[in-house]
Amino acid sequence: MNRNPHVAIVGATGAVGIEMIKTLEKRNFPVGKLTLLASARSVGKKLKLKEQEITVQELTKDSFKGIDIALFSAGGSISKEFAPAAVKAGCVVVDNSSYFRMDDTVPLVVPEINGADVKKHKGIIANPNCTTAITLMALYPLHQAFNVKRIFASSYQAVSGTGAKAIEELERQVGQIVAGKTVTKEVYPHQIAFNVLPHVDSFLPTGYTKEEMKMENEGRKIMHHASFRASVTCVRVPVYRAHSIAVSAEFEKPVSVESARLVLSKAPGLDLVDAPEKAEYPLPLYVAEKYNCQVGRLRMDCALDNGLCFWVAGDQLLKGAALNAVQIAEELIK
Amino acid sequence: MNRNPHVAIVGATGAVGIEMIKTLEKRNFPVGKLTLLASARSVGKKLKLKEQEITVQELTKDSFKGIDIALFSAGGSISKEFAPAAVKAGCVVVDNSSYFRMDDTVPLVVPEINGADVKKHKGIIANPNCTTAITLMALYPLHQAFNVKRIFASSYQAVSGTGAKAIEELERQVGQIVAGKTVTKEVYPHQIAFNVLPHVDSFLPTGYTKEEMKMENEGRKIMHHASFRASVTCVRVPVYRAHSIAVSAEFEKPVSVESARLVLSKAPGLDLVDAPEKAEYPLPLYVAEKYNCQVGRLRMDCALDNGLCFWVAGDQLLKGAALNAVQIAEELIK
Repeated sequence: MNRNPHVAIVGATGAVGIEMIKTLEKRNFPVGKLTLLASARSVGKKLKLKEQEITVQELTKDSFKGIDIALFSAGGSISKEFAPAAVKAGCVVVDNSSYFRMDDTVPLVVPEINGADVKKHKGIIANPNCTTAITLMALYPLHQAFNVKRIFASSYQAVSGTGAKAIEELERQVGQIVAGKTVTKEVYPHQIAFNVLPHVDSFLPTGYTKEEMKMENEGRKIMHHASFRASVTCVRVPVYRAHSIAVSAEFEKPVSVESARLVLSKAPGLDLVDAPEKAEYPLPLYVAEKYNCQVGRLRMDCALDNGLCFWVAGDQLLKGAALNAVQIAEELIK
Repeated sequence: MNRNPHVAIVGATGAVGIEMIKTLEKRNFPVGKLTLLASARSVGKKLKLKEQEITVQELTKDSFKGIDIALFSAGGSISKEFAPAAVKAGCVVVDNSSYFRMDDTVPLVVPEINGADVKKHKGIIANPNCTTAITLMALYPLHQAFNVKRIFASSYQAVSGTGAKAIEELERQVGQIVAGKTVTKEVYPHQIAFNVLPHVDSFLPTGYTKEEMKMENEGRKIMHHASFRASVTCVRVPVYRAHSIAVSAEFEKPVSVESARLVLSKAPGLDLVDAPEKAEYPLPLYVAEKYNCQVGRLRMDCALDNGLCFWVAGDQLLKGAALNAVQIAEELIK
């Protein structure tokens, strides 16, 4: 791999695409050249990498000639259609959609957990689901120390996880309510302002949403832990940015709050924020725009004989998407 | 007990007190006379029961002469100080605070679950914690059918659970943010607008909040189920009214979604709202101001061998407070 790779961002004008550009810049990723790709309606828009202005080009199957790494974040159908063309052109794809995640030939990577899996790629590397990635940032270090058997988790997911239109929807609905006007809906099936929706992604015949099943399925693959079990409820909340997850985790080896605290305080990409007596615990409002996830509210689980409760929060546009993708690109050029 | 009792409301001008007056009126409770009591600063305010205007009087230890039933909702310290005086004056106290709930001589009652316990009172009957009451409205019918062993629960609690000042705080912060002004805090330790706080009630040395422990402690007493276990995370969310709870429940007897649905569809005070394919599930925005709680999102639990996941929502000012108190008063005059 070129040490100063030509990088393309597919879906450059979306909420995650914009964060990808910022993250390449902030982390001083050695970009040789940056190509910004998007659908026809965004062509001609100009975005900046450092002081350099870059014009968005239309995504076609011929877009990938000479590109070394393509970061895709334009939804599963775009990944399905264009990632194979990119691979054919000799490009390595880091895909943020769910489309390739469970494909046995595609590594699914959180660099702090299974960074070595990057090397096994055959052209495509998948970026995990945001809620899963953030949860695993705290769960995996505990798993290494105490062997996790299963978790029970409930999420508090920000609207920016749905995209830029959902951010606008929450802003618009709040404005309508403050002005005493009728609330309009375009993105979510129900009002999201001053409400919570137990509905993220689409429903499966089992009654779970696809989003809820990602924790168990992607968690098994990322942690290399085939018997990991996860019972999850995913809920959208009127927060702009950063997801939070309440977790009960059962372990094989004896666990204590003290031993868990020691493990988590040394975990990469994670900050321990756990001083409830001073009202210090992870909050989506404060973790927004931070690279590190935060974990706190550590306590022994009341309903498990050897379990811990904790609360983890992280910026899902960063660790759940753009940051993780750039970290994978960093592994590629190592 | 007088069939047309003289009723007093202690804390009449608070968020719950106002709902108590409305609930007495809407349910045609046979109020002989209504006395409204509050602290000195609310004295002289006028509130209406049907067409009758009633002036708020100052709460003193002499306030209870001739009163048959006193509904207390003015916080634990007021209950501690004034409930014994009310009992001494021959009044039956229905107390909404947590102060007497775990007292062995005080019944803790959800009428649909353990209404018969009302008869055991010695002057005081306690109204349970709102999150506990709403959760048990769905859990108890399932327990009767399948014997619950333990639950894992995460709450999404509305600001009105904290009181009228917290409603004002959310409104004020939203207005400040929309206007681009600095956000001010008076009630919560952190901004609640566009944020979620894993902090409801105060922290115990174990790392749990008092609120989180109420589910297990009060649940055991209400369900007469001493071995019931509950692992709970309580979270305040920027919703004005109605709490929601995500629950994983393990049972002794074999459970299925179909059998659970049948049980829940017949449960008193509960509506089954469970058609995810039509985006129909309980939502705090829609359950607000309703007497019945709602349950949905029924599915087999992924991490339990014999468990169910469900999502329950209810108006915590009603079933979690005012309605439940009036229902207890109805039991008293039966």
